[in-house]
Amino acid sequence: MSVLKALLEPRSIAVVGASRSPGKIGYTILRNIIEYGFKGELYPVNPNATEILGYRAYPSITAIPGEVDVAVVVIPAPETPKVIEECGKKGVKIAVVISSGFSEVGNTELEERIVKIAREYGVRILGPNIFGYAYTPRNINATFGPLEVAKGNIAFITQSGALGIALMGWTIMNEIGLSGLFSIGNMADIDVVELSELLADDPSTRVITVYLEGLKPGRGREFIERMSRVTLRKPVVVIKAGVTKRGMKAVASHTGSLAGSDALYEAAFKQAGIIRARTITELFNIARAFAQQPIPRGVNTVVITNGGGAGVLATDAAELNNVPLLEPSQQLVEKFKETMPWFGSPKNPVDLTGQAVVDNYIKALKVAVESPEVDNIVILYCRTAILDPRDLAKAIAEFYRENNVSKTTVIAFIGGVEVYEAIRYLNRSSIPAYPTPEEAVAALGKMLWYKKYLESRLKKQEVEAVRLALHPA
Amino acid sequence: MSVLKALLEPRSIAVVGASRSPGKIGYTILRNIIEYGFKGELYPVNPNATEILGYRAYPSITAIPGEVDVAVVVIPAPETPKVIEECGKKGVKIAVVISSGFSEVGNTELEERIVKIAREYGVRILGPNIFGYAYTPRNINATFGPLEVAKGNIAFITQSGALGIALMGWTIMNEIGLSGLFSIGNMADIDVVELSELLADDPSTRVITVYLEGLKPGRGREFIERMSRVTLRKPVVVIKAGVTKRGMKAVASHTGSLAGSDALYEAAFKQAGIIRARTITELFNIARAFAQQPIPRGVNTVVITNGGGAGVLATDAAELNNVPLLEPSQQLVEKFKETMPWFGSPKNPVDLTGQAVVDNYIKALKVAVESPEVDNIVILYCRTAILDPRDLAKAIAEFYRENNVSKTTVIAFIGGVEVYEAIRYLNRSSIPAYPTPEEAVAALGKMLWYKKYLESRLKKQEVEAVRLALHPA
Repeated sequence: MSVLKALLEPRSIAVVGASRSPGKIGYTILRNIIEYGFKGELYPVNPNATEILGYRAYPSITAIPGEVDVAVVVIPAPETPKVIEECGKKGVKIAVVISSGFSEVGNTELEERIVKIAREYGVRILGPNIFGYAYTPRNINATFGPLEVAKGNIAFITQSGALGIALMGWTIMNEIGLSGLFSIGNMADIDVVELSELLADDPSTRVITVYLEGLKPGRGREFIERMSRVTLRKPVVVIKAGVTKRGMKAVASHTGSLAGSDALYEAAFKQAGIIRARTITELFNIARAFAQQPIPRGVNTVVITNGGGAGVLATDAAELNNVPLLEPSQQLVEKFKETMPWFGSPKNPVDLTGQAVVDNYIKALKVAVESPEVDNIVILYCRTAILDPRDLAKAIAEFYRENNVSKTTVIAFIGGVEVYEAIRYLNRSSIPAYPTPEEAVAALGKMLWYKKYLESRLKKQEVEAVRLALHPA
Repeated sequence: MSVLKALLEPRSIAVVGASRSPGKIGYTILRNIIEYGFKGELYPVNPNATEILGYRAYPSITAIPGEVDVAVVVIPAPETPKVIEECGKKGVKIAVVISSGFSEVGNTELEERIVKIAREYGVRILGPNIFGYAYTPRNINATFGPLEVAKGNIAFITQSGALGIALMGWTIMNEIGLSGLFSIGNMADIDVVELSELLADDPSTRVITVYLEGLKPGRGREFIERMSRVTLRKPVVVIKAGVTKRGMKAVASHTGSLAGSDALYEAAFKQAGIIRARTITELFNIARAFAQQPIPRGVNTVVITNGGGAGVLATDAAELNNVPLLEPSQQLVEKFKETMPWFGSPKNPVDLTGQAVVDNYIKALKVAVESPEVDNIVILYCRTAILDPRDLAKAIAEFYRENNVSKTTVIAFIGGVEVYEAIRYLNRSSIPAYPTPEEAVAALGKMLWYKKYLESRLKKQEVEAVRLALHPA
């Protein structure tokens, strides 16, 4: 594991196949590493250049004067065995093999060869057939994807390259903050399990997300055992592609890995405490909730809304996603009643009515936060003329910050452009906000599932320790 | 029905309770009607004003010199009986009663009274307790919601006010084009069925969407019978809120209407040929597909992608949403093969690989469009450095326009900001595009369901007639 750690915290990175030609992968990766602000030593390797992008270039990896922790390899597949051997001689810890042309096109022999060489020297391989990796706490973006990876606490491991790069852009646009991003491609050596273990130890990662197509055959038992240990420390959310018959065929022709029956994976995930997402949107919806909010302490949830319809949608979603809505005591009902106009509804959902302004929301939130009956809060807002969503977002964020609220909270704001701005503001303030009530409640549902899972496997104090480790008070 | 038609094509509108004070509902509605460009006569009614927003104001509706087709009523509930009576005397066809304070707060008696008066005079009532309505082909925005309703072919009927207004903003932001928008509130008179029938006759509406909380008790049979006739002419997509036990309770406390068991509604919808959406996002995803694309002629679907992972996700989604993926003939496989690099996959999904540029896509599209084996097309794109999504969007739109392509097509582009721009461009070009493969395929799945439904009820030529009526060649 200590070797793998060099992937996250390398003192130096070499780019073998670094290029001076914009548009080339060997150029983009080097430029991304530089521009994203990597602080360690950086060595372009290219026998036909003495300098690339302001950095001195070396003819080979063995010609580099200092130590090299990570070598990013961007050269044609046939030349990789020689380079991996040189990496071994140089004492490189991890070779990040971008190059394609291995098992994904039937060239299994070549893939086995580089792994064999690497093992001889104790070099670990990420890839081949990947777009690289990023680790934001150390300002590393060693990918040929977009530059401006948003920083945060979600780690994303992807078995698909094209989709992974595309999703990278998606996370940037939606300000979904990542700790790390790992393209694993053919998983010739380092696999999703080992990476998950590495990230379980990483203090910047609060939730691990995975786009998975398939595992190596015969590794099911090991997968369950080792991932079970990971999920007792951190939530893992997986979208498993190739779940249908036809999808499995598509996986086989895509990566050549065995997709395996969906039921098999479903059972394995359940046993390993892995949360399953069904769509890409859901994957990141759930991840945002875990990254920003503490694991719920209890199950009793209150919905606060300014629109009855939104409240009804949330109520439906609550039942469908196993989110128990609190039956408030008469005393609590009376308190909620004081936060709204006479025609509001103080039961759960707490309907502040379309007349609600910031003050009504904050008063109702105060009641919810102070009540020992309430564990979790769902805040809903439908765009009204009398309450600007940006004002409400600011007030909510301030209230949570000032009162150091630790009750698990998810939010849905529904409406147009100003609502969209408000949602982004809330997300930046570490309160996960979504454009529909269904998404907010579904994310909370997965958090509650994880809480129950931990409770079924750990002692009460241990659960609390996990909770605190992820979100220190 | 001829009376109801005045709602869509009024020669004149009166706003009873029009106000000079910005922020007041009676001001916003009048201003929206003016600024959205209504071409007919407009009469503010306010006993304390001679002119409002540049329009001559009248002390009462009976004082208006010309005929009044639609009266928008924005006055306190207790005064509505008198105004409805005046509407009757004046010969107003439809009273749009914005005012709240009726059955939704237990004041059933007052609601029954205005209905009784209206019936005596032959006035129809929309509402009460609504935010108004819009009908874009006639430039009518008689709501107190946002002004800039996007024009298009989706009609949206909503039983919830706050949620409806919020969704209005949402449609504007996402450029979801509406033909009409109808807040139905307490449904004291005109109900969702009658409105659907009206919209079935409306040439600007291609799909009817409904947010429904519940129907009046004892109207189930009638609902099924009448909606069955509507769905044989136009697709109807409904999101039914209050589907769970707890959700039903929430509905009861929100609108007082009976939510009814979910199974009951499920059965009724199925019998009536109504498409059911499970989330707000899905409601408009499906509606966009119907509004922009013709009903599929056959079921055989081809997926064209530049990323294997996206292809796998689409393949899974196809099976889950009953979208049959074509098993291409050897001949067709050979043709697809010519559109891609040697390491691409010419089977279905057709994987053009991450190397794909515009030319590969257009060639593959040409093959798909020309092949009699292919009925429907799913186009996927993952952001790559070598292919700008905006270029691809433009090329695809041009190809469809120039070749007058009538094969049902849905698109998913995955990535960041430029991808978002490309998606909007495609939507404006009448090809429904989504941010994930799952959403695109799910929308196509509902179109195929509707096609099959029509085929189970109508003769072949009749189905073709429906198809052509919605999307003239």
